[in-house]
Amino acid sequence: MRRRKVKGADEKLLSYDKQVIKNPVDFKGKWSQKFNNDNPIYIEVGTGRGKFLTTLAKENPDINFIAMEIKEEVLLKAVQKADEGELNNILFIWGNVNNILEYFEDKEISRLFINFCDPWPKKRWAKRRLTHSNFLDMYNKILTDDGEIHFKTDNEKLFEFSLNQISEYGLKLQNVSLDLANSEFEGNVTTEYEDKFMNLGMKIYRCEGKKR
Amino acid sequence: MRRRKVKGADEKLLSYDKQVIKNPVDFKGKWSQKFNNDNPIYIEVGTGRGKFLTTLAKENPDINFIAMEIKEEVLLKAVQKADEGELNNILFIWGNVNNILEYFEDKEISRLFINFCDPWPKKRWAKRRLTHSNFLDMYNKILTDDGEIHFKTDNEKLFEFSLNQISEYGLKLQNVSLDLANSEFEGNVTTEYEDKFMNLGMKIYRCEGKKR
Repeated sequence: MRRRKVKGADEKLLSYDKQVIKNPVDFKGKWSQKFNNDNPIYIEVGTGRGKFLTTLAKENPDINFIAMEIKEEVLLKAVQKADEGELNNILFIWGNVNNILEYFEDKEISRLFINFCDPWPKKRWAKRRLTHSNFLDMYNKILTDDGEIHFKTDNEKLFEFSLNQISEYGLKLQNVSLDLANSEFEGNVTTEYEDKFMNLGMKIYRCEGKKR
Repeated sequence: MRRRKVKGADEKLLSYDKQVIKNPVDFKGKWSQKFNNDNPIYIEVGTGRGKFLTTLAKENPDINFIAMEIKEEVLLKAVQKADEGELNNILFIWGNVNNILEYFEDKEISRLFINFCDPWPKKRWAKRRLTHSNFLDMYNKILTDDGEIHFKTDNEKLFEFSLNQISEYGLKLQNVSLDLANSEFEGNVTTEYEDKFMNLGMKIYRCEGKKR
């Protein structure tokens, strides 16, 4: 992702104090209280400009959403989308996926989305890929017993790696699509990047990994 | 597969009475006796002209192989390969995969290969695909507790279908390759058709499904 420094983006971001959680560790195990209901909680790691999760939040008022993103410039765009849509079922964490266990309690999350993450193509970078078993281990902890990971990418090698990691970890693969635009999968919500890729005729790969 | 009627192929086939099993139902549960050893038994359903399984048989003298093929003309080619190679660890069944439970006892088989089977592309034909759950159910019965299904195809849609069926059935996917020629998988033994496809630069998909 090309990153342009936006002057004052961090202050601006934190000014959205209704949506942006400054101290996410304080809400570990208490996100339902924060949302003030018992609806299931879905999170996205690396939410980017937020089209995907804000669209889902709009379409699913009975689900709570938490968007995580480390880059303040893009997260700001996502927060602004939610603010303009007056969505009250989505919150934002300006934080790193590596700290996910500090933010969420065991079995607190029903679904975790990973969309078009960095493929880290070199072999020695494998541990940085967000579907590496080290990450799956963290996701598995915070997911409910029937929790699911939903994954999309345009990178064939990353998808191959991810299928193997997810299955090897013991999650059950389902709804595997090798070409999402030409698959039977319905109700796909796209990201900004996905729209671009699809317009270029590139294949999108998608799968889900489900806890037993 | 293009099929050319070869006059007298069936009589010729049955003349190889050392390799071709005329009455496979008689050996259900007794294949180890027939091979006269306790080596693991690997089978291929739809063995075609037999390059794949005869190559494996040659390379692995401590494993027993059984090739199944319904088309006598192509099976004859496979049998002739084994005969010329003087292989004594491979047998041939001129039979239909639908009858597989009549040929093999529960847990008699350690590995089952499916290579480039008919994709049966129309939805209403799904049950004819050799990776449909109805077939997996039969394979699962005859496989040992650590048994494996090894599957290859050049058909993306069939592969997508197969990944979903295998995982949904409860087998553990492993060694998934979305482009076998450019994957890390080593020791691939090709079929006649695979050589042709690869020379045309087409992608080969491969995966394994393992019983727990």
